[in-house]
Amino acid sequence: MTDVVNRQILLASRPDGAPTPDNFSLVERPVPEPGDGEFLCRIVYTSIDPYMRGRMSDAKSYTAPTAIGAVMGGGSVGQVVASRVDGFAAGDFVLTYNGWQEYAVNRPKGVRKLDPAAAPISTALGVLGMPGMTAYAGLLEIGKPADGETLVVAAASGPVGGTVGQIAKIKGCRAVGVAGGAEKCAFVTGELGFDACVDHRSADFAERLAAACPDGIDIYFENVSGHVFDAVFPLLNPFARIPVCGLIARYNATEPPPGPDRLPMLFRDVLTKKLTIRGFIVTDFHARQADFLRDVGRWIGEGRIRYREDIVEGLENTPDAFIGLLGGGNFGQLLARRDPWPTEPAVRRQRDGSFPRVPVLAPGLRGN
Amino acid sequence: MTDVVNRQILLASRPDGAPTPDNFSLVERPVPEPGDGEFLCRIVYTSIDPYMRGRMSDAKSYTAPTAIGAVMGGGSVGQVVASRVDGFAAGDFVLTYNGWQEYAVNRPKGVRKLDPAAAPISTALGVLGMPGMTAYAGLLEIGKPADGETLVVAAASGPVGGTVGQIAKIKGCRAVGVAGGAEKCAFVTGELGFDACVDHRSADFAERLAAACPDGIDIYFENVSGHVFDAVFPLLNPFARIPVCGLIARYNATEPPPGPDRLPMLFRDVLTKKLTIRGFIVTDFHARQADFLRDVGRWIGEGRIRYREDIVEGLENTPDAFIGLLGGGNFGQLLARRDPWPTEPAVRRQRDGSFPRVPVLAPGLRGN
Repeated sequence: MTDVVNRQILLASRPDGAPTPDNFSLVERPVPEPGDGEFLCRIVYTSIDPYMRGRMSDAKSYTAPTAIGAVMGGGSVGQVVASRVDGFAAGDFVLTYNGWQEYAVNRPKGVRKLDPAAAPISTALGVLGMPGMTAYAGLLEIGKPADGETLVVAAASGPVGGTVGQIAKIKGCRAVGVAGGAEKCAFVTGELGFDACVDHRSADFAERLAAACPDGIDIYFENVSGHVFDAVFPLLNPFARIPVCGLIARYNATEPPPGPDRLPMLFRDVLTKKLTIRGFIVTDFHARQADFLRDVGRWIGEGRIRYREDIVEGLENTPDAFIGLLGGGNFGQLLARRDPWPTEPAVRRQRDGSFPRVPVLAPGLRGN
Repeated sequence: MTDVVNRQILLASRPDGAPTPDNFSLVERPVPEPGDGEFLCRIVYTSIDPYMRGRMSDAKSYTAPTAIGAVMGGGSVGQVVASRVDGFAAGDFVLTYNGWQEYAVNRPKGVRKLDPAAAPISTALGVLGMPGMTAYAGLLEIGKPADGETLVVAAASGPVGGTVGQIAKIKGCRAVGVAGGAEKCAFVTGELGFDACVDHRSADFAERLAAACPDGIDIYFENVSGHVFDAVFPLLNPFARIPVCGLIARYNATEPPPGPDRLPMLFRDVLTKKLTIRGFIVTDFHARQADFLRDVGRWIGEGRIRYREDIVEGLENTPDAFIGLLGGGNFGQLLARRDPWPTEPAVRRQRDGSFPRVPVLAPGLRGN
């Protein structure tokens, strides 16, 4: 290893509403040494995901909150630089949960080795990782898409929404995306192949969504909440399914929205339309992991699933990128990357939005 | 037949809020004559169920509303008095959907013949009919009770709630009922064998419910909504299931309840606790009908499922009984019965609350 310093981003304080840069602190610590049974990992890609907002709060949730002063947690892809454990050698690429830092010492348990010849290593944090698995399992296990049905998903240019819609298309559904702005909508229909995409910022969003769903909505894959749900709700067909994997629009909310209590209205439709609403997190469907890697890997190889990454250069820019993500400021799977690293084999993509024409699977292929 | 008049109760107008007697009209019409392929049915028991409130409104629901001037629909048990169709002879007992009237002409399709030696014929409208099947299918297919879990159900002295709790006990759950008043609660624990029953009219209802559910709630079988749901909501465990078959407390509501919009709060818990909320009506699980009759018939025979009927004498009293039902005024499966009928073999029960010690299956056994 060449560095002597391990930079880390810690949770400095809990946000009240939208996170601010003050909620984070950047510290420099010595690069740790691996002990027996451990290896040292140099992190190349750090994932930046909406669920991390939940970990910053101490409200009860499905996992414990991040402690004040702890490193912000999250998925990461790195390379082994020193190993004192069998099965992991210097140079190996690994998927770990090392969070927002540059180095970490790991034990093998829970670590997935990556084959850089099979797929760009960054995809282990996106379409072939947690977001892709969330899309795959939530759609197939809860959404249960059937030929000829209509699916709606928001954040459709992102790694979850984009994958949901493309799998729905493979299953014979009409896929209608929701995204913020004309550029994202054009990407969702033009590159990802959705049947339609509606800009949720348009003044007549609800009318446009209704026009895009002439046969109603059979599956609403809920990852945002807010006014997208409000527009979806009256369009739901009998027996519609609503997998709930996220509620981005509400993560920063400190107050309920104004207006009457709509909970009874929801239950009325749950009853009269026989709706299914089910929350899940990706680990609930761990048993489908092998199916996921097989199916989505094949679909990527066949060009039937595409994706886009939004790369931020440098760990120090992670908090700002995360704050922007919660407002829809990203365009694709948001990742922070270390400073250029000559041995990294994956295709590199810039924040200017240049799009990876997947599949980029050939081991000899290199990006800019 | 001896009567020359068929009395019918029609929907006279749509209620605004709670139904009133003015919403119904009693008319006298000639007893109809069966044509070829038809039989004439004399109705003995007319079911009075909460779902009928929905049919009185023209709001969109899972079935079309009752037309103004039409007979109030509903399940009924009767006896064939004249037949012009093979397979149905005078004297046969039948389950039909003839609603609030005294005679009707039927074709065989959808009619179930009843064996009065197997079970009291009234049970075809209760524990062995639509309410029992609602309990059985909703609990097993959506609630998925597991040994050691806690189930909560309201209207626990009624035919759905009472059956839900008893089946949950058979499946190894802790069954906690909710009912209105000490007498009903004593019946639910003493006669139906629930582990606990909480009076929802008590001032400290939420605290009492929490005390009755020390390990939280894994299944909430939703049939009432309102303040029962509010008390249940914070007690739900991760992966809790909420089958939704009814919302009695809201059927007469014309306004949303006061207070903030709790819909986002619900979705937050759907996500963080990975809840499943699913509406259904009994016909969604038609494929389980044979299983239901086999299992619940056996459990009644073994004394493991008990029930109570609340009999109103005379068709003319049906509207008042129905209006009372929506406020919890019944105590058990509410049925309207024709004036005493000497040939009827089922055990008779009075509105004074006398309880049928089931099983009452011996054909020679007669009630008062």
